[in-house]
Amino acid sequence: MTSRPYDDLPTVRYEGPDSRNPLAYRWYDADRVVLGKTLAEHLRPAVCYWHTFCWGGQDPFALGADVFRRPWSDGDPLAAAQLKLDNAFDVFRVLGLPFWCFHDRDVAPEGATLRASNAMLDAVLERAARKMQDSGVRLLWGTANLFSHPRYMAGAATNPDPEVYAYAAAQVKHALEWTQRLDGANYVLWGGREGYETLLNTDLRRELDQYGRFLAAVVEHKHKIGFRGTILIEPKPQEPTKHQYDYDTATVHGFLQRYGLEGEVKVNLEVNHATLAGHSFEHEVATAAALGLLGSIDANRGDEQLGWDTDQFPNNHVQLVPAMLEIIRHGGLGQGGMNFDAKVRRQSIELTDVLIAHVGGVDTLARAFLCAAALHESGDLEHPRDERYAGWDGALGQAILGGSGLDALADRVHAQDLSPQPRSGRQELLEQLVNRHV
Amino acid sequence: MTSRPYDDLPTVRYEGPDSRNPLAYRWYDADRVVLGKTLAEHLRPAVCYWHTFCWGGQDPFALGADVFRRPWSDGDPLAAAQLKLDNAFDVFRVLGLPFWCFHDRDVAPEGATLRASNAMLDAVLERAARKMQDSGVRLLWGTANLFSHPRYMAGAATNPDPEVYAYAAAQVKHALEWTQRLDGANYVLWGGREGYETLLNTDLRRELDQYGRFLAAVVEHKHKIGFRGTILIEPKPQEPTKHQYDYDTATVHGFLQRYGLEGEVKVNLEVNHATLAGHSFEHEVATAAALGLLGSIDANRGDEQLGWDTDQFPNNHVQLVPAMLEIIRHGGLGQGGMNFDAKVRRQSIELTDVLIAHVGGVDTLARAFLCAAALHESGDLEHPRDERYAGWDGALGQAILGGSGLDALADRVHAQDLSPQPRSGRQELLEQLVNRHV
Amino acid sequence: MTSRPYDDLPTVRYEGPDSRNPLAYRWYDADRVVLGKTLAEHLRPAVCYWHTFCWGGQDPFALGADVFRRPWSDGDPLAAAQLKLDNAFDVFRVLGLPFWCFHDRDVAPEGATLRASNAMLDAVLERAARKMQDSGVRLLWGTANLFSHPRYMAGAATNPDPEVYAYAAAQVKHALEWTQRLDGANYVLWGGREGYETLLNTDLRRELDQYGRFLAAVVEHKHKIGFRGTILIEPKPQEPTKHQYDYDTATVHGFLQRYGLEGEVKVNLEVNHATLAGHSFEHEVATAAALGLLGSIDANRGDEQLGWDTDQFPNNHVQLVPAMLEIIRHGGLGQGGMNFDAKVRRQSIELTDVLIAHVGGVDTLARAFLCAAALHESGDLEHPRDERYAGWDGALGQAILGGSGLDALADRVHAQDLSPQPRSGRQELLEQLVNRHV
Amino acid sequence: MTSRPYDDLPTVRYEGPDSRNPLAYRWYDADRVVLGKTLAEHLRPAVCYWHTFCWGGQDPFALGADVFRRPWSDGDPLAAAQLKLDNAFDVFRVLGLPFWCFHDRDVAPEGATLRASNAMLDAVLERAARKMQDSGVRLLWGTANLFSHPRYMAGAATNPDPEVYAYAAAQVKHALEWTQRLDGANYVLWGGREGYETLLNTDLRRELDQYGRFLAAVVEHKHKIGFRGTILIEPKPQEPTKHQYDYDTATVHGFLQRYGLEGEVKVNLEVNHATLAGHSFEHEVATAAALGLLGSIDANRGDEQLGWDTDQFPNNHVQLVPAMLEIIRHGGLGQGGMNFDAKVRRQSIELTDVLIAHVGGVDTLARAFLCAAALHESGDLEHPRDERYAGWDGALGQAILGGSGLDALADRVHAQDLSPQPRSGRQELLEQLVNRHV
Repeated sequence: MTSRPYDDLPTVRYEGPDSRNPLAYRWYDADRVVLGKTLAEHLRPAVCYWHTFCWGGQDPFALGADVFRRPWSDGDPLAAAQLKLDNAFDVFRVLGLPFWCFHDRDVAPEGATLRASNAMLDAVLERAARKMQDSGVRLLWGTANLFSHPRYMAGAATNPDPEVYAYAAAQVKHALEWTQRLDGANYVLWGGREGYETLLNTDLRRELDQYGRFLAAVVEHKHKIGFRGTILIEPKPQEPTKHQYDYDTATVHGFLQRYGLEGEVKVNLEVNHATLAGHSFEHEVATAAALGLLGSIDANRGDEQLGWDTDQFPNNHVQLVPAMLEIIRHGGLGQGGMNFDAKVRRQSIELTDVLIAHVGGVDTLARAFLCAAALHESGDLEHPRDERYAGWDGALGQAILGGSGLDALADRVHAQDLSPQPRSGRQELLEQLVNRHV
Repeated sequence: MTSRPYDDLPTVRYEGPDSRNPLAYRWYDADRVVLGKTLAEHLRPAVCYWHTFCWGGQDPFALGADVFRRPWSDGDPLAAAQLKLDNAFDVFRVLGLPFWCFHDRDVAPEGATLRASNAMLDAVLERAARKMQDSGVRLLWGTANLFSHPRYMAGAATNPDPEVYAYAAAQVKHALEWTQRLDGANYVLWGGREGYETLLNTDLRRELDQYGRFLAAVVEHKHKIGFRGTILIEPKPQEPTKHQYDYDTATVHGFLQRYGLEGEVKVNLEVNHATLAGHSFEHEVATAAALGLLGSIDANRGDEQLGWDTDQFPNNHVQLVPAMLEIIRHGGLGQGGMNFDAKVRRQSIELTDVLIAHVGGVDTLARAFLCAAALHESGDLEHPRDERYAGWDGALGQAILGGSGLDALADRVHAQDLSPQPRSGRQELLEQLVNRHV
Repeated sequence: MTSRPYDDLPTVRYEGPDSRNPLAYRWYDADRVVLGKTLAEHLRPAVCYWHTFCWGGQDPFALGADVFRRPWSDGDPLAAAQLKLDNAFDVFRVLGLPFWCFHDRDVAPEGATLRASNAMLDAVLERAARKMQDSGVRLLWGTANLFSHPRYMAGAATNPDPEVYAYAAAQVKHALEWTQRLDGANYVLWGGREGYETLLNTDLRRELDQYGRFLAAVVEHKHKIGFRGTILIEPKPQEPTKHQYDYDTATVHGFLQRYGLEGEVKVNLEVNHATLAGHSFEHEVATAAALGLLGSIDANRGDEQLGWDTDQFPNNHVQLVPAMLEIIRHGGLGQGGMNFDAKVRRQSIELTDVLIAHVGGVDTLARAFLCAAALHESGDLEHPRDERYAGWDGALGQAILGGSGLDALADRVHAQDLSPQPRSGRQELLEQLVNRHV
Repeated sequence: MTSRPYDDLPTVRYEGPDSRNPLAYRWYDADRVVLGKTLAEHLRPAVCYWHTFCWGGQDPFALGADVFRRPWSDGDPLAAAQLKLDNAFDVFRVLGLPFWCFHDRDVAPEGATLRASNAMLDAVLERAARKMQDSGVRLLWGTANLFSHPRYMAGAATNPDPEVYAYAAAQVKHALEWTQRLDGANYVLWGGREGYETLLNTDLRRELDQYGRFLAAVVEHKHKIGFRGTILIEPKPQEPTKHQYDYDTATVHGFLQRYGLEGEVKVNLEVNHATLAGHSFEHEVATAAALGLLGSIDANRGDEQLGWDTDQFPNNHVQLVPAMLEIIRHGGLGQGGMNFDAKVRRQSIELTDVLIAHVGGVDTLARAFLCAAALHESGDLEHPRDERYAGWDGALGQAILGGSGLDALADRVHAQDLSPQPRSGRQELLEQLVNRHV
């Protein structure tokens, strides 16, 4: 195998819905303007380093060996990391997507000390900086891997050993500063091991306080160095630990308020994390929007029959329309975007499978967005919704929201012998209206 | 059938673990002192009106008819309600439990107007007040049913129609004032239909604001009338609606902060609601304790294979020990207690099944509490836990919690070439230690 | 309200994808020929009596009252049943669908004795027979309700009381004979309460034997009376009971073989029953097809976040394409069809909601079928699949299937130092190929 | 670290319920006679090689590195395998358990060819044979790993490539013959990758036929070589693949009948596999017993909040009592036993955690068995159950089971105006009776 197998592949182009070319976009017409912006500006799609260049296709359950053999799979770790970087930027070019995103330990190997790890990270990211400049590919977010190394076995910020906290803080400092230098639009914290395996050995209040202090320190450092990106937390209910502190958006909402971090931190929402927490994806998006926390999107989906995070590329645009609608209603993602923290299936061992997965995934997002935009513009849902709540803009509604107490309302009910009648929620009609646009 | 079938039954007594009498307590020795209080003072067990006297044994899924034929099942509604009350106090007496709790519409029927409903409620609760005085049975909590009537089909406080909100407010006023008059220790709000069926017709932010205002109005009224009980919210993730706003403790925590109600409202935690939300029961208890929200307990359990709230009486004391331990660590439930919002199985159609279910349930709680108390006193778990976090009481831990930033910590890591080593979490040992006490 | 509110509504027509009329079909062009038959012949859609005319919109969990007020909701039971029948045939006419299906106790009320119940059923079905003749609407299946009445609380065939078995047998006899008289294409058995609540009081082997004998008796009676329809079992894993004996297709497959009923009985597969059993719907269809058991389809879907049977009308055609493809690969449903054992949401209280739900549901099925037919005809999936298994049509594959033993195969492996290499499963490509047709 | 860290540890002894020694049995008194046999003869507990000596403590989800550093973790693979074997027999001696069990590739490494792999396996198992003789430890079962190597990525018997089938057949031949030579009581097939990832590329019927032929070939070879152990299939619903063909006991039941293998193959039931399939463990045991398939037990449990196989050591004896009762009712496990295919938690990195986990696990099984035996002997459940079904031993019951048809039964119902009355299922009472014995 050549060491740069993607090097001579042409860039994937938009060819329209009738194309039969598996390496063409059928829906993602990057420059198409809808709702006042291009599709690329709405979606801001990003290729992730993590699963796409680092995952080896292991079977997580059956101790199954790596099945992906890549040119950068073996050899001297730092040289392999540089070769991986070259290949990654080859893929970015082939796919023609505007963003990438990374974990520090995926970009460069772990050394014997943090200083050594930092030095290797510097070496690879210096090269990445040049490649970004040359290619125009931008950074959606950077992050630090605070979960794979054995030292993080029992958490990073929430570790019972404060030395581990210190190590994590130092690692985040370096990753955050690199994210600033690469002009990243966001910095992500995924609390992979910030949780517990058993309450029998866990002091929940201590760990929450540690975690709150850690997040505050990250926010302080952001301001100290003048980083203008958004700090994002990525909620996930469990896995790898039994229970994680960033369970879902509502949990993060309470946590941020408790530690005075509202307005400083938003959420990076993953479809499959939402469903593992018992929510629809659109629920998480709508909740984050309502609470002022909507930051960015991690577009990989789960398998409806499986109880773990399968991180599959999206393939059903109909299912994504409601979430896209919530994003549109909210006015878009701002500095956020849509990354593919997705992995090709273990059996998809060919290099081309990686490309096809991204093409299909981007097309699914684009198609869902276009449907949601058309739905939104039609007013088919918006008008009935406004009408449904119209009473709250009237005198009684305003009086209630203005502070009417139980006594005043009881007087009114008795005086008028109020007997409000139920009205149809018209769910089937609304579902039919959505289907006009998909 | 006689109209008072429980009337001549003897009171259930504590007979010890070797008793073979199904109508004797084997573990609930009400006056036994442990950890400085009697078992009755720790558990404060309460019989619920709801399932025990009002549920007819319908099959919720297959439109199955009522199977329970009670003396109070038919006849003039108000007369039947009075007969039901007499029977309820008969059961309280037979079981010898210190508390009861009620929903307004279970105590008395719905009338043509709220005024008429209130009048019937007054008639029955006047009689209840006398019976409480005579029997010494106290009220753990009262509540208003804001979910069964068609008017509440689309929510009470979160209804798109403000008239429904007004009606609900008036209904709560009456139930809250009766709860005060009956010297209830708590007042509960279960947001049964405060949620949504589909986001397609829902304005999440509006509904949250309505709900926040409603809860604030209840708290204001409590202070206005001088009610000294605790206001409790009962979290539940879904069912009857697809998604409910009081999903779990963490969600309620965020909600209370958002609407300035922290310190005013606590949670009433149900085992099965916890598990439907994807949490262990002990997780919900520990979270509520850590966040200062632990109010009261609803002890009915679910079925591990079923995806809805089965409301079964508890029968596995081992499973409850971790939650009891969290309650003990927290210093107990204060004004809260443990109610049985549980129902006998549909096929348990005999009047005696109701008694046996309560006896078995109370015994399971008592046994779990006794085990947890012994475990707590032994220090078997407490010592290893303190030791595990000892570093956080040392210099580094205190510096971190005192505000060390990323720069300072990175300096320290590099200066000392820190390389913290993982330590065993010893989960299997801790589980074995628990088993010494069950 | 008039007693025949649907009477003067026009029949729903096909108006094509661009129609904005909620009472028009956008995809269900009944006479459109695809794969050699009309859409109506492929789908054989059927309106169900059960939820559409009998369910009152109760809240199953919160003891919520009926919210649907229909002209036939009150009054003398038999007269109401006749009025309900008239309205049902009005709806069949408005929807223009070719089939209906019924449960005996939905058509006519339960009497004091089975004889009385039978007489009322006769009265209503005599009228139905005339209406079928007049309208041309045919019967997809009939069935007996062996689950709502208290006598069936602990099962029908699997009841511990053989008298209940006898009663059920007599009831099925009458329903089966009426199904024959109305020229029903199938007769369905849904074992709603053929299961257990707790193993503590259950003799599994006895109950399986009872159930096997019951099913055999139904098959014997079918042959005795010369009924030419198919006997169908409808698998469901749980609900109303904790565990049901017809858990899923594979379970039914084992059961039928054990009691010598293979070749006599097929399955009626419901989408939501599949997902409750932990399977995708396409899995159940493909399994039934592979095992020779594919009978008919119950098209209602579930809610991905809810753990009970929500019986919603289908609304996502993309999700149904894989199952439709399996049906097409199998050569269609034969005497089966696709019924809507679906219910409008509790809040959809308007009479028109019922029509809109069916229109949207039929359109979803039609669109999914058309997509699957195009996909099938394209060969996009079929060619790669044939190629994937080509080795099994070669010499080694045939030798293995012809009976090669471990010794012979080991000799071959060692002689050739066989080292088979993995090949990509190409899942993302195949998903992209599907998306070309949706 | 010494290379034989367990070598000088004393053997774990029974010290009774009051012992506070974490390396003593509190309930497993191996020679205690109950129900006519010793506890060791009832339970036949086995240590598994797989997780206990081979798993490295990886985080399956977060690509987390190995955290267990064992003396046999590094170095020349074959030498490490021999050292691992020595340590394994040290652990068997310390725990004092009568059985072990193994996968071929856990015992010895994979070589470049199957011949090379076999040679290494031979080298290690020759040594194992001597150690078994010296120690008296016996083999509960052997098995072949047909899932970890990339060649098995798309299945072994069900691979689309018949060469993979051949390779698997050759591998099983060797493992089966070694199992015979080591006098194994059973031979297990776990179809880890016998399933599918997506139906889009799967021919279900072909794969089932391949699998049926494979299993038949194993059975033929067993008879050919005169192996007297039982062939066991281990059902599992999914994981590692999306859907596995041995979903649960009922599925295996249908499969065995289809391929004429009933009476030849039984099941090895794992607690966590049962719960992942939507069943209680006692359901799987009772079903296997009723269908004549009960073979052996894999005692590791899951986590109720997690959707994957966590393989935890059992720690709640109350939960296991119903399954133990079903085993006792069935007359025991015969040649089967109870193995711990369990793993210590990832954070349990000490060598002693492995011992403590087994001690706690064995104690949990022993305590559950003792409770179930007492319950069984008391008749507390058996008498009410017999009485509940008494009608089926009477005239009507016998007539029905003897073949009464619908006509005869309908005649009887009408002649007698039968109206069977429901009887209480008494679930709460039965649960209370169980609790007398736990």
